[in-house]
Amino acid sequence: MLSRLPRVATLQARNASAIASQEPSAPSMKTAVPGPKSKQLREQMDPIHQTASVRMFVDFEKSFGNYIVDADGNTMLDIYTQISSLPLGYNHPDLVKAAADPKFITSLVSRPALGSFPRTDFPSGISHALTSIAPKGLKAVQTMLCGTSANENAIKQAFIWYMAQRRGGAPPDAAHLESCMVQQKPGTPSLSVLGFQGSFHGRSLCMLSVTRSKAIHKVDIPALDWPIAKFPRYKYPLKDNKEYNDAQDRECLKDVEEKIQEWKKKDNDVAAIIVEPIQAEGGDHYGSPQFFQGLRDITKKNGVVFIVDEVQTGGGATGDVWAHAHWNLSSPPDIVTFSKKLLTGGYYYADHLKVKEGYRIYNTWCGDPTKLYLLEKVVEVIQRDNLIEKTKSVGEKFQKALAELQASHSSKLSQARGRGTFAAIDLPTSALRDKLVDTAIANGLHCGGCGDKTLRFRPALIFGEKHLEIAFDILDKSVKQI
Amino acid sequence: MLSRLPRVATLQARNASAIASQEPSAPSMKTAVPGPKSKQLREQMDPIHQTASVRMFVDFEKSFGNYIVDADGNTMLDIYTQISSLPLGYNHPDLVKAAADPKFITSLVSRPALGSFPRTDFPSGISHALTSIAPKGLKAVQTMLCGTSANENAIKQAFIWYMAQRRGGAPPDAAHLESCMVQQKPGTPSLSVLGFQGSFHGRSLCMLSVTRSKAIHKVDIPALDWPIAKFPRYKYPLKDNKEYNDAQDRECLKDVEEKIQEWKKKDNDVAAIIVEPIQAEGGDHYGSPQFFQGLRDITKKNGVVFIVDEVQTGGGATGDVWAHAHWNLSSPPDIVTFSKKLLTGGYYYADHLKVKEGYRIYNTWCGDPTKLYLLEKVVEVIQRDNLIEKTKSVGEKFQKALAELQASHSSKLSQARGRGTFAAIDLPTSALRDKLVDTAIANGLHCGGCGDKTLRFRPALIFGEKHLEIAFDILDKSVKQI
Repeated sequence: MLSRLPRVATLQARNASAIASQEPSAPSMKTAVPGPKSKQLREQMDPIHQTASVRMFVDFEKSFGNYIVDADGNTMLDIYTQISSLPLGYNHPDLVKAAADPKFITSLVSRPALGSFPRTDFPSGISHALTSIAPKGLKAVQTMLCGTSANENAIKQAFIWYMAQRRGGAPPDAAHLESCMVQQKPGTPSLSVLGFQGSFHGRSLCMLSVTRSKAIHKVDIPALDWPIAKFPRYKYPLKDNKEYNDAQDRECLKDVEEKIQEWKKKDNDVAAIIVEPIQAEGGDHYGSPQFFQGLRDITKKNGVVFIVDEVQTGGGATGDVWAHAHWNLSSPPDIVTFSKKLLTGGYYYADHLKVKEGYRIYNTWCGDPTKLYLLEKVVEVIQRDNLIEKTKSVGEKFQKALAELQASHSSKLSQARGRGTFAAIDLPTSALRDKLVDTAIANGLHCGGCGDKTLRFRPALIFGEKHLEIAFDILDKSVKQI
Repeated sequence: MLSRLPRVATLQARNASAIASQEPSAPSMKTAVPGPKSKQLREQMDPIHQTASVRMFVDFEKSFGNYIVDADGNTMLDIYTQISSLPLGYNHPDLVKAAADPKFITSLVSRPALGSFPRTDFPSGISHALTSIAPKGLKAVQTMLCGTSANENAIKQAFIWYMAQRRGGAPPDAAHLESCMVQQKPGTPSLSVLGFQGSFHGRSLCMLSVTRSKAIHKVDIPALDWPIAKFPRYKYPLKDNKEYNDAQDRECLKDVEEKIQEWKKKDNDVAAIIVEPIQAEGGDHYGSPQFFQGLRDITKKNGVVFIVDEVQTGGGATGDVWAHAHWNLSSPPDIVTFSKKLLTGGYYYADHLKVKEGYRIYNTWCGDPTKLYLLEKVVEVIQRDNLIEKTKSVGEKFQKALAELQASHSSKLSQARGRGTFAAIDLPTSALRDKLVDTAIANGLHCGGCGDKTLRFRPALIFGEKHLEIAFDILDKSVKQI
């Protein structure tokens, strides 16, 4: 390790300056967004692939650092980062260099079925990329392709453990194996997962049953009869609303306990609870450390698997790699799922949840080595460049600037909230929120919404003070314009 | 296009010779499989990632063409190809060259959220990679990450269409949008998907409800009450068993019609049928063209979406890019799903199924451009090197050799069947099949099973006559040894 230090130091010097010198000094807009080239590409694609959700086409070769460049040459400061999934912004020099390594090329063209025939460097890749940032108290990890497959398999692993407990720890016997093929008990059990109002855990049919953020995700799709409990809806600033917010915590925890009992009576036991540290798609709703400690206590008491979905919150923007680290839980979550900024999907799980039999948590690819190796480099850069510490420091200024923005526009903005650079603010209506997003984009700040009327901030970990100034100048101007 | 021809010709010459000269001339075994290095890596990985399904660790840098090289330097002819997912074998020179292109590096390190901010070259990538090989009668395609997400979203699109039909084509109204948030009708409907005994469509909770290949996949996981119909179980050779097999077709089609009526009475309408052309995980069970034409007729008559799952069969091994092309259907399937050999997951769909509203068929990444661009090159190589035609020709010899192998070992082998190089043969028991797989691997032929007692053949499209000879020599020797 020592011999690498001088090389790392050189890289650091070069890359820090590379980002600073190659990044645009400010946004520069040439057309409306989407511009004529984006529109033309959309027309070209429309007969062969859906375009209903396409906002613009992007020139990923020209995009760099915190700046996204679209097909029409519009250069925007990006605080939306491909739906919160770029840890180091666009084309980070260290990642570009890493991705040229032959192991990336081999992994691309000769993709392994990782569950059965992993690459010889897969164990070290997991160790460097994932064990090194494992949440406190968890060590084992399962790679997957995306957040939805991470959540789906985390839930499967919870069901498998729950049923093994019912059998006193024994693997499935003949009665279970035979009955599951005709989907009868005991092999096919009635079990449920408890989710929360406002939550988002993915869009597979199973995950949609615990996703309650927006109707357009769920409408027309059949669902499972799984319980949904209340999630706190705090008033901000927190320090001025302690009594109200504490009551929210108590009410929601009571609802969780009641739902667990209710579903037990329906012979549809709650095997797992899945919860986001921040409901990041549903409108940036936070839970307090006390709320989550209460949840942990309830799951312990009821023998329910506690799954924390860090797909959007994981990766450092909250000032820790894991948002749940801020809770100081008495014991770690049973499972923590991730994707987005961590590039590979997957989940950490407690040792007692380990599945002994093969082919139960399994699929053809079980992930993608190219994403794991990239994450390895991302983790190295985050540590080398102190990006978590920097995000914490920029985050404090960010939250202050957000509060000031709200104070300057108190008729239009409310509920400023956040942690690190992971932040949000509310508009009075959905229409006004959408108008602010469009106006900010037209002014050179690429941003996006969440929930019904929330503007969400999801900058990369290389977002610094100069970006902060530009972002809030544009926001101030844009709020005035709407 | 014309200007590219000379370059292509040079590439062809060089690469044809490159594969021939760099590929080992025969397998060479140094240790048992798994060998000591694989075992050591397994021990290293066991505390941090599940290893229960790991067969061996692979040296993907040394593997080439049709040959896989494991961590211990064992060189095996591979007819399993990472669970049927390598179209051109290992490290094909054209793919290696393509993957070094800067657009791969940019796509890796600055991954787009394709549903909203696609790359400027995404429309042309879709056109070259996917439109160019679209199944007859289908043009629109949706990219996804894997086979399971392809099937999940295909089913969602079927539900969305089915409900729009109920509304006379109208989008969801307020009553639907509100009720779906509390999972009540009309927004959350009771709808089902009909699958078949022996089928495999993935391992998410929803897909497991129509997957019936093996108990170990399904046990302990809750399931949806969706109908399962009988799938033909033919006797081989087909020409000697026409009467029996035709009766199978009639019985299974009758069962499908009955199940559709039964579920309609339960107020759980069948919105879609999902079926594999060959039940490729469940034991290589085939349906005849008449059977599938019958299915197509039933779906038309009942207004049910007809989904053909070509995740394992698509990509050319059957002698056509699409196995369902052999059926000569009167009208195309409504949806065809794919993954594995096509490198990107996704599905083609008929124009009438197009979803008008955004964010309904959607997720963060909606696929991965690196896989699409690789597929673009794969398609180019397949066309340039006539690999489908060659597979058809090798396939005929393959089927003949398989029949001869069975004739030589008629007490141990039965039901030789296949199309192109996609083939299978049965052993008397599961234990004996596993023993044959292990013995063949020890003798230098890397293969795998499917179903209860079937050996499956899944060579790459570069599998030629010399590989055929080696494979069947090893099989003959191995069958004698078990």
